[in-house]
Amino acid sequence: MTSDILIARAARKLPITEVAARMGLGDQEILRYGHDKAKIAHHAVAALAHRPRGHLVLVTAINPTPAGEGKTTTTVGLGDALNRIGKRATVCIREASLGPNFGMKGGAAGGGHAQIVPMEEMNLHFTGDFHAVTAAHNLLAAMIDNHIYWGNDLDIDTRRITWRRVMDMNDRALRDVVVGLGGVSNGFSRQTGFDITVASEVMAILCLARDLDDLHKRLGRIVVGYTTDRRPVTARDLKADGAMTVLLRDALQPNLVQTLENNPALVHGGPFANIAHGCNSVIATETALRLSDYVVTEAGFGADLGAEKFLDIKCRLAGLSPAAAVLVATIRALKMNGGVAKEELGTKDVAAVTRGCANLGRHIENLRGFGLPLVVALNHFAGDTPAEIQALQAYCARHGVTAIPCHHWSKGGAGAEDLASRVVELVESKEADFHNLYPDSMPLWQKIETICTRIYRAAHVEAAPGVRAQLELWEEEGHGRLPVCIAKTQYSFSTDPDLRGAPEGHVIPVREVRLNAGAGFVVAICGQIMTMPGLPRHPSAETIALNDLGQIEGLF
Amino acid sequence: MTSDILIARAARKLPITEVAARMGLGDQEILRYGHDKAKIAHHAVAALAHRPRGHLVLVTAINPTPAGEGKTTTTVGLGDALNRIGKRATVCIREASLGPNFGMKGGAAGGGHAQIVPMEEMNLHFTGDFHAVTAAHNLLAAMIDNHIYWGNDLDIDTRRITWRRVMDMNDRALRDVVVGLGGVSNGFSRQTGFDITVASEVMAILCLARDLDDLHKRLGRIVVGYTTDRRPVTARDLKADGAMTVLLRDALQPNLVQTLENNPALVHGGPFANIAHGCNSVIATETALRLSDYVVTEAGFGADLGAEKFLDIKCRLAGLSPAAAVLVATIRALKMNGGVAKEELGTKDVAAVTRGCANLGRHIENLRGFGLPLVVALNHFAGDTPAEIQALQAYCARHGVTAIPCHHWSKGGAGAEDLASRVVELVESKEADFHNLYPDSMPLWQKIETICTRIYRAAHVEAAPGVRAQLELWEEEGHGRLPVCIAKTQYSFSTDPDLRGAPEGHVIPVREVRLNAGAGFVVAICGQIMTMPGLPRHPSAETIALNDLGQIEGLF
Repeated sequence: MTSDILIARAARKLPITEVAARMGLGDQEILRYGHDKAKIAHHAVAALAHRPRGHLVLVTAINPTPAGEGKTTTTVGLGDALNRIGKRATVCIREASLGPNFGMKGGAAGGGHAQIVPMEEMNLHFTGDFHAVTAAHNLLAAMIDNHIYWGNDLDIDTRRITWRRVMDMNDRALRDVVVGLGGVSNGFSRQTGFDITVASEVMAILCLARDLDDLHKRLGRIVVGYTTDRRPVTARDLKADGAMTVLLRDALQPNLVQTLENNPALVHGGPFANIAHGCNSVIATETALRLSDYVVTEAGFGADLGAEKFLDIKCRLAGLSPAAAVLVATIRALKMNGGVAKEELGTKDVAAVTRGCANLGRHIENLRGFGLPLVVALNHFAGDTPAEIQALQAYCARHGVTAIPCHHWSKGGAGAEDLASRVVELVESKEADFHNLYPDSMPLWQKIETICTRIYRAAHVEAAPGVRAQLELWEEEGHGRLPVCIAKTQYSFSTDPDLRGAPEGHVIPVREVRLNAGAGFVVAICGQIMTMPGLPRHPSAETIALNDLGQIEGLF
Repeated sequence: MTSDILIARAARKLPITEVAARMGLGDQEILRYGHDKAKIAHHAVAALAHRPRGHLVLVTAINPTPAGEGKTTTTVGLGDALNRIGKRATVCIREASLGPNFGMKGGAAGGGHAQIVPMEEMNLHFTGDFHAVTAAHNLLAAMIDNHIYWGNDLDIDTRRITWRRVMDMNDRALRDVVVGLGGVSNGFSRQTGFDITVASEVMAILCLARDLDDLHKRLGRIVVGYTTDRRPVTARDLKADGAMTVLLRDALQPNLVQTLENNPALVHGGPFANIAHGCNSVIATETALRLSDYVVTEAGFGADLGAEKFLDIKCRLAGLSPAAAVLVATIRALKMNGGVAKEELGTKDVAAVTRGCANLGRHIENLRGFGLPLVVALNHFAGDTPAEIQALQAYCARHGVTAIPCHHWSKGGAGAEDLASRVVELVESKEADFHNLYPDSMPLWQKIETICTRIYRAAHVEAAPGVRAQLELWEEEGHGRLPVCIAKTQYSFSTDPDLRGAPEGHVIPVREVRLNAGAGFVVAICGQIMTMPGLPRHPSAETIALNDLGQIEGLF
């Protein structure tokens, strides 16, 4: 991993004004943040609305394993490669969360010679978007307790407040807290907690809002809890929506940075991929589509969780229609899916690759079910053997898909030109016939069942007591047309993280459902979902510091 | 107040690159944040070190009253006026805290035609400095609980952790909380709380650090609590200092904005004026001094609290030496000090002005005690009568000080040219013979007594049980040379906020002392000090929103 940071530091960055100029954006259309970061101003975004959209390409992957798949690296490499073969391409990815960088080493945006820079800033405060989300979220929380303190005119049931607070920090001590201790002047005591900022519904809203007006409306619809007679209380009831919009005004503008090869990258928004939809912002994707022939973007986790949400939540709500999908796999990850332990990944094992391809095949089927033409990108690692690669290619050929070895990690865009050419072929074939998995009109429980049986191949979906009644109540309240966001482990099609490959016939239990009326989806929680991480025994924060040159050490 | 925002919106701002260029700073020496904000880069700050310093002028005031004094307005007006009479002058003020803007209306930087812009951004996220302070502070907090969770090798006594968490929000429910509930995986439960970000010692450190290296060292010295055998535990013991420095790297760079008259203003840092020293950053003041003939800066609250801390903490630690002081007063505030109720301030009352001058006179004496030549700036209000103004001028003349009526609020810099000329006269007279109130070597308790008796004119200082023993312990541990920061009401020389004028013979009780080993001072708490405000019954957040033009309404 050390080389990532050395490669990033050696990058010959262009002034961000030049990157913008190549996209056709002048100095007045961007807001610079230093020399190598900028936001595209609201007025410039609005002025693009009449332009035709370029082609949207989704990069997704097999189920993640500890071996690493390189989805972001492939997204960046493909973007650079498309530019090399003469297409104006823009990469769109999510922003990094600050807190986790101080826990485990990590945080790069891509890897090797397929990275987005400036890496340090993107993993620290960047342009302040996450801090704005934190502030907007916590202002609403403060206004809830303040409303109760001053007489509780709305009759909020303090036992039924669902809105917690957030912090962009791995801090397990804040998961479960009691606030309002210390006497009358500090208000009424109650039990609540903090989530990490990326888990905030405000983050999901920022990523789904079309413009400031839509942002305002969505914020107003947030349900923060219930009255003693169980009517929902919204952010608008508390008159918090206007001030929250003001706090998020700048953050809604997409961030422009660049790849190592000086191609534009919009890095904007970062909702959780489990309890939220896990994609970069609609506004960034839309802006990129108006400015490019091709937009390459990625979805969180594997194609089961990530692509499904990208397609059924983001594309549905924003009216986006992808032209093709790229499914990333590595020989190492396929071997793990074929039952090989991490320690033994260095040993050639063709049979394990073939066994692991069952996971890949399941994702291929699923993506085809959405009407998307696709290509498999084999993200090449040094230890891959020709026989293993052949086994993968043979499997893909049997399923009518091309698998293309890619070397963007070691060679940058030049290493992914074959992939880029295949993507262009797929897009220009106009094979795409994108459709959602389920219609808006389907009842909520049936939506959950449809995702779980058709994507996750569960034999049966089990609802915890109260879940179905809750869904029906929301339908009565007018939320029945919302899509569903499944929150479950990303490591398996089942709810057992150790069950790799392509399990079927399992049961998926829905423990709890949550209404995100502002973001515009219902979350179905299947299994334990952690919304506030902790720090490890030796957090990377212990070794992060400035070196004598003023460079940041230990962050990656 | 409405006109402030209209005047600010009508401002003809220069591109910030032009403001920088006029100071001699090129494009590579600043980091732009949009079109009208920038940071002066670390390398540019460092390159100035060899240059001679300009003259430092302190703007301070009589004790604050609800009538308003206009200290910031006068600071800005004087800066503009100095530029008008041919001096290269820079204004240095503090940044605004985000949270309180959502409580009470307010937040402008100056007023009328003496303002700093862009007003909205400066009162919202600005360049993210406060968010960086919040993150650095809370990372340290997370690392404390994480250390205990993983075995507590340092043997931290969980009952003696003094480091709380912070949030830039008025949220009374967070003042007193229990964290770590919910079972084994969430750590050990303990009672703690949140302060508002400006109350963080990290903020005070940011404002006193000379450079990144000094910042790192100061952060490492922060005492977060005590072991079971009562030895102090520092941020360095927890290995948090390096990562905190990384989080604050960008924030340490001074922010450049402009006045309505396009003169440079450095707006940087914002420590509390009670439990901390309440001045803008040392690094901003130093940078401005190397780039200007004159630097006009202000201190928090009245001259008793604010100027004393500016002189005995900031100037002492940074080796700064002011050349003159401006003492701001208004006829209205003097009348309140003379016993007039707020509702009756519109009525002419020469006798009340003269009575109120006792407060002014006390501050004149105190400032002279520091060896500073001074002038009184009468910040003119429309209702002031000639007889009242004459009474003030006569009082000042008797005390050997010129009192100059100023009209910068209505006329901008042109309204403060007389004041500017007098300031130049004082500076050029080289009368200043600045010296601190007490030497570093004085014992801590004696420092407290010296400030309370000589500045506050207390007859006697009372220590709560344990206070003097605590101070002696810190002296034994090597903290005896630190200056003292008095935390008390800003409304009176006494600890009774209703005792206006020039009380004497009172007793000041020291309830508690706190060690800020990182910032480099000992805080003596005299009276109730609120470190986490609450929101009012109808917070201004309820009316803050974007209007149809995308402008922010309700923030001011």
